[in-house]
Amino acid sequence: MSNKVLVTGTGVAHSFLEPLKAAGLVVVNPTHLLTDSELSNELQGAVAYLVDGDESVTANALAGAKNLRIIAYVGMGYESSIDMDAANSRGIVVTNTPGTLTDAVAEFTVGQLINANRRLTQYSNAFRAGNYGTEEKQHDLITRNVGIIGMGAIGSRIAEILRKGFGFGVSYYSRSRRLSLEESLDIRYLDRLTLATYCDVIIVMTPGNSSTWNLVDAEFLQALPSGSILVNTARPGVVEPKALRKALRDGPLSLAVFDGFYNGAVGADLLNEFSEDRLLVTGHIASLTHEARTNMARKAVQSVLNVLATGTDEHVVGTVGRP
Amino acid sequence: MSNKVLVTGTGVAHSFLEPLKAAGLVVVNPTHLLTDSELSNELQGAVAYLVDGDESVTANALAGAKNLRIIAYVGMGYESSIDMDAANSRGIVVTNTPGTLTDAVAEFTVGQLINANRRLTQYSNAFRAGNYGTEEKQHDLITRNVGIIGMGAIGSRIAEILRKGFGFGVSYYSRSRRLSLEESLDIRYLDRLTLATYCDVIIVMTPGNSSTWNLVDAEFLQALPSGSILVNTARPGVVEPKALRKALRDGPLSLAVFDGFYNGAVGADLLNEFSEDRLLVTGHIASLTHEARTNMARKAVQSVLNVLATGTDEHVVGTVGRP
Repeated sequence: MSNKVLVTGTGVAHSFLEPLKAAGLVVVNPTHLLTDSELSNELQGAVAYLVDGDESVTANALAGAKNLRIIAYVGMGYESSIDMDAANSRGIVVTNTPGTLTDAVAEFTVGQLINANRRLTQYSNAFRAGNYGTEEKQHDLITRNVGIIGMGAIGSRIAEILRKGFGFGVSYYSRSRRLSLEESLDIRYLDRLTLATYCDVIIVMTPGNSSTWNLVDAEFLQALPSGSILVNTARPGVVEPKALRKALRDGPLSLAVFDGFYNGAVGADLLNEFSEDRLLVTGHIASLTHEARTNMARKAVQSVLNVLATGTDEHVVGTVGRP
Repeated sequence: MSNKVLVTGTGVAHSFLEPLKAAGLVVVNPTHLLTDSELSNELQGAVAYLVDGDESVTANALAGAKNLRIIAYVGMGYESSIDMDAANSRGIVVTNTPGTLTDAVAEFTVGQLINANRRLTQYSNAFRAGNYGTEEKQHDLITRNVGIIGMGAIGSRIAEILRKGFGFGVSYYSRSRRLSLEESLDIRYLDRLTLATYCDVIIVMTPGNSSTWNLVDAEFLQALPSGSILVNTARPGVVEPKALRKALRDGPLSLAVFDGFYNGAVGADLLNEFSEDRLLVTGHIASLTHEARTNMARKAVQSVLNVLATGTDEHVVGTVGRP
């Protein structure tokens, strides 16, 4: 019986992996980004895989993983990294780490909302360059209508901060209504296109999966008021890149914010065409805090131990091993 | 009788000056930064002066201003621009524009707090430079203690956002206790040095005058916990620059944020020594919103009309013309 646990990525401190070793497992942690064939090779002898790196867990990578019982995704957005059909059909349990990064991502998103609206990065860089002439007045956010797409745990926390703290007007669109939240926070549900016509600041905070891919499309973006701001802390693919380019080039978007960006030429072309005062991008760091990463690592390690011992875990996201 | 109103700076749109013209006044608005002798010349024929530029209203500039009845400062921080002893002794009313920029400055300050804590500008610039390797974990602000120095209208609004929205722990030091605010927001008063030892994030939001100059000194900065962040949205002089340099160079400060910076060699040397990942500076833009600037301009123009008609105004800040 294999006892190898593969860990990819460099974000999980080795101290968090001690419980695995204490359970008699052998941890293998390559620190570079594995190619598909390298990942396939590494998984052939593994019983568990902790995904902290940017590897794509493809059907091909899983094809020879005969002993693999669990893929523990360190974070929330497993759907853009793991071929769930392949994992499900091979009887592999998949877990993620909900509740560990809510504060980190909500604080980050609100920070980027103000950063974008008040051009903090642009004006900081301008000050360093000795160039003050480019300063233009912005708008108090309290005079603007904020729309949130996605009202899960993080979206709800963002809405709470914006309503209870800042007092901004907040509307939302989500797969399902959140009636108690509508009442407790005084926020209102609008359908997708009505949200666009009504709100001049849009925050996108949905899972990235087949139902949300391109949810922010040309129709949505073109319905926004002139000068609008888009803050996408979800996966980049939730926003359709051609529609984004058109909305930045010809309006109505004044600025778009992404945390993590499109791969390849699609992303490079956009970054070339629009400078930081129109397109503000960070490298998928919304959950990059000690607290979030510690909790994520602990939860993922516990899920591995639970699934190997019992076949199930409270954070199963696939069809296999549901509690 | 002179009917000239001098307006300096470029921030007041001419449409806001129409009420002055309608009252039979002649508006003169030089658009460059006036030297002391230019200001002196311009003021010799003026009955009112609307200060929107960065001019220093010195005793010398006021020496020949025999007809001047009011200096209306467009903003809050009149004390670092206007020689109040000279204005008071010459019987000139001085006003400012409280309540017009509370939301703008509070939103800005909270944005810079998150920007600093999560290194948003640094990581945005790193992403643009193709350099992701510098990313280090930060801390969720909800785990940190935030201290606010100064609990006036803007400090109170910042405390409200941080407590009611984010749920951060907030303590404060101020010239006077705010007992009802302590209860309604669940914040606590600490003396100046206790605040430093207890808080790892400090927000400075005091008026800039002789009693607050160098309030954040070496003793205060050296009492902070290691890795602390200082966000100064007040005048730069509230922080003692030599103490700031030492605290950035040798600890305990990880990052300092300023909106507006020290003039001359003092500022230039600090900017040369510390890059944006240690010292994040914007050019006095905290109130640079359409709403704030509109309200500031309207209020200052109304103060001019009030003082010329009645000798007083609700926003008098000097000893002359108090209502």
